[in-house]
Amino acid sequence: MSEQATRAGRRGRAARTEKRRESQTATGTPYISRGIPITDFLSDEGAEIIEANADRILEEVGIEFHDDPETLEIWRQAGADVTGTRVRFPKGLPRSLLATAPARFTQHARNPARNVEIGGNNLVFAPVYGPPFVTDLDEGRRYGTIEDFRNFVKLAYASPHLHHSGGTVCEPVDLPVNKRHFDMVYSHLKYSDKPFMGSVTAPERAEDSVEMARLVFGREFVDANCVMIQLINANSPLVFDATMLGALKVYARANQACIVSPFILAGAMSPVTVAGTLAQVLAEALVGCALTQLVRPGAPVVFGAFVSSISMQSGAPTFGSPEGSLLLNGAAKLARRAGLPFRSGGSFTSSKTPDGQSAQESAQTILATVLSGVNFCLHAAGWLEGGLCSSYEKFVMDADQLGMMHVLAKGIDLSEEAQAMDALHEVGPGGHFLGAAHTQRNFESAFYRSAIADNNSYEQWSADGGLDAAQRANQKWKQMLAAYTPPELDPAIDEALIAFMTRRKSEFPDSNV
Amino acid sequence: MSEQATRAGRRGRAARTEKRRESQTATGTPYISRGIPITDFLSDEGAEIIEANADRILEEVGIEFHDDPETLEIWRQAGADVTGTRVRFPKGLPRSLLATAPARFTQHARNPARNVEIGGNNLVFAPVYGPPFVTDLDEGRRYGTIEDFRNFVKLAYASPHLHHSGGTVCEPVDLPVNKRHFDMVYSHLKYSDKPFMGSVTAPERAEDSVEMARLVFGREFVDANCVMIQLINANSPLVFDATMLGALKVYARANQACIVSPFILAGAMSPVTVAGTLAQVLAEALVGCALTQLVRPGAPVVFGAFVSSISMQSGAPTFGSPEGSLLLNGAAKLARRAGLPFRSGGSFTSSKTPDGQSAQESAQTILATVLSGVNFCLHAAGWLEGGLCSSYEKFVMDADQLGMMHVLAKGIDLSEEAQAMDALHEVGPGGHFLGAAHTQRNFESAFYRSAIADNNSYEQWSADGGLDAAQRANQKWKQMLAAYTPPELDPAIDEALIAFMTRRKSEFPDSNV
Repeated sequence: MSEQATRAGRRGRAARTEKRRESQTATGTPYISRGIPITDFLSDEGAEIIEANADRILEEVGIEFHDDPETLEIWRQAGADVTGTRVRFPKGLPRSLLATAPARFTQHARNPARNVEIGGNNLVFAPVYGPPFVTDLDEGRRYGTIEDFRNFVKLAYASPHLHHSGGTVCEPVDLPVNKRHFDMVYSHLKYSDKPFMGSVTAPERAEDSVEMARLVFGREFVDANCVMIQLINANSPLVFDATMLGALKVYARANQACIVSPFILAGAMSPVTVAGTLAQVLAEALVGCALTQLVRPGAPVVFGAFVSSISMQSGAPTFGSPEGSLLLNGAAKLARRAGLPFRSGGSFTSSKTPDGQSAQESAQTILATVLSGVNFCLHAAGWLEGGLCSSYEKFVMDADQLGMMHVLAKGIDLSEEAQAMDALHEVGPGGHFLGAAHTQRNFESAFYRSAIADNNSYEQWSADGGLDAAQRANQKWKQMLAAYTPPELDPAIDEALIAFMTRRKSEFPDSNV
Repeated sequence: MSEQATRAGRRGRAARTEKRRESQTATGTPYISRGIPITDFLSDEGAEIIEANADRILEEVGIEFHDDPETLEIWRQAGADVTGTRVRFPKGLPRSLLATAPARFTQHARNPARNVEIGGNNLVFAPVYGPPFVTDLDEGRRYGTIEDFRNFVKLAYASPHLHHSGGTVCEPVDLPVNKRHFDMVYSHLKYSDKPFMGSVTAPERAEDSVEMARLVFGREFVDANCVMIQLINANSPLVFDATMLGALKVYARANQACIVSPFILAGAMSPVTVAGTLAQVLAEALVGCALTQLVRPGAPVVFGAFVSSISMQSGAPTFGSPEGSLLLNGAAKLARRAGLPFRSGGSFTSSKTPDGQSAQESAQTILATVLSGVNFCLHAAGWLEGGLCSSYEKFVMDADQLGMMHVLAKGIDLSEEAQAMDALHEVGPGGHFLGAAHTQRNFESAFYRSAIADNNSYEQWSADGGLDAAQRANQKWKQMLAAYTPPELDPAIDEALIAFMTRRKSEFPDSNV
């Protein structure tokens, strides 16, 4: 097959995809559009102090770019002061480069009913990212496999409260490191039609990810539109490494979105204070985001902040802490002032099991996420052990909480129907509202119905087996996987993806590096 | 002993109490003074709609006052339209009566270092109130006893994150209903020196409670100052019963604080919508609060709202729901606009066990409590089963969360030390902040240290027994009770309290009504 024929084939598939897009309908909300105002802990004056400090860090201390002469050259040409691997930035340079970055953009899904709007007043929930381990109540904790990976993709697809298929929902440790990205990207495209994330573990794996997206969406469409979003972590403090920089450049050149996220445990990788950490977060994010615009002006980019604290007793990471919420909230404001979409938060916990600690820490973080105006929320479901483990039970417990966040984010309905004055007149003192006409009219839409909570009496609950939330969640995810039916995928596209993977996998030996 | 001699004795004791007040020092913060702005989901225009609806409810539907001719006469004289037990209110009357109510007031504790400021930007945490059952992991669920009651008083005293001893921390079901109030009030005074709540289950029990406070604080002091706060529930929808009205009048006449709280499960006791429920909450609270001012202008009063939703599947109460958070937040704004301190929230759950559901629901509610500007938070620790059960493990898990709320409510420190620019210059790219001079200087004050969370590695956690949060909490409350030492209590006051209780108990037969 010639390259021309291949292209024609792709165009044909892309056209069919386009047609199918129109015919499919989504279940669930494609993303949250917030109806509540943003909760802002940082004043404008406070933000100005942090911004001035970030400028000073960039000018006086600078950022290191390791093992990547090309990036150093890009910065030199942009007017930065490059000495060895250290780059210092004239005041205002990184921020001025962000002028070309979109304040919001659409990430296209292969089912367009599931396209997400990233930025503005919107919030997108994506699942857990990165854990090498998985756990469930039946089999306990073990290394993740590609089967686990597919299961989490299926659970995210089946949950109406997750908007995104995510990326490394767990590491498929049973596959070679240098080839597992093919199977991960394929799983997202095959078992879900929600938007997804590409590989960032090496520039060539990023290229492979983009190539697979082109097989599905068409080359021209991918060049003109965002169909993938990727997680680029700074190596905090104040360092970007070649792996992340390489992936960033691949995706930015392909017009695909990068989330540039400092990954910071305050006290270890940043100062032990919120204000000090925020200045560092801003410095790192500004520079990483600005780099995407130097690579391709107008490429979609997201200001990210993965920030938590450490235990001052043990140095271990802590999650769901009040300092974490303050950091998240402050960073959100800094991102808004930079004119960029913001990624942060999730259902974080350092607990090893889906217990009370896990739920408390996750609830604190996810509520801070929703109230602070986060636009893209990774790790929204499934996280345990500080991100080392994807939990099946935690996944569905978190997804249930995300459903509640949808209701909260809508805010208070003040329509005449919601004011319910007819009900108040009908029922009157001492009456009961369940039978009121207004209640009956609004019965179906009234009040979020949890899939996990048990609201029954103690006696009923005991008679039902006295299960705790994790045990009920264990039943729930099995039901969801049993009921899973895959979204339609054009067989020609499926074949092309498999052919591409087979060919590429044969071109180099397996390796676990 | 003559009444004169008794009074002299009381004055002497009061003077000694005063002296001891100065010498004692408190551990923990006496209450929270918020450094973060209030999160407001309801716009001013939205609040005006709700207020107009509440006015219409009061004018067109009215409120019933059952079995209490005195209260009906009070309203008649105030200018309301009284027909049978139904009272309708000219537009603006209840609100105008609130002009004499203080916007904030001090509740005095017998240790003045533990006085709390109720209103303004302050938040006071009080423990669980009302459950007939108690539970712990060792003995399971059973009826509460006076020993359990004392234990919860001791735990609240020992926790630096609870500001208040509360009221019915559990029902001491082993004591006769008509006499247990003596032992409850005595336990608060004996085993704690934090502020407390009096009995509301009958007017004469309210009188007894006030009398015991007079023995501790002195008669004149009590008449001039708030030393007790009491929970007065409306019998929603739109009814107040004689028991609650009787207690309200006793406390208001004694210049002691009433929390007038509609107790509402939306969908059953109010409309199935947030906006409709808020109008009813406002109508009920305005009228109950206004009544205190008719009884004694200037008496301290708190606008309360205990509002949650019901399950539309089963009709069972649900807690930690997004609708509950919206209701809490909206009611807080209405209370602020009425110029009154606000009571709501707590660590609510309908779970039967301190599991993930319990923690999620409690975290959602307590965070809404802190962010919405609640001034007095009952049920802040220990609640299970929709308030039917006080849990030892949940108590210490919740108290740990309250500690985190103290940190969150402080907000972001923008002092020069917190900006940490010296650390950022000292450490630089790729460095580690733990050893930095700034980190060492701020080590002790940095980051909340949880008493419950396990942040260790999976391996360490497993080696430590693989306990979940509830199991660790089980160890924690036993340690706290073992380490408990009672606050000093003047033996003369102790004797007077015991003599009073002994005499009063002998004056009427035991009864379980």
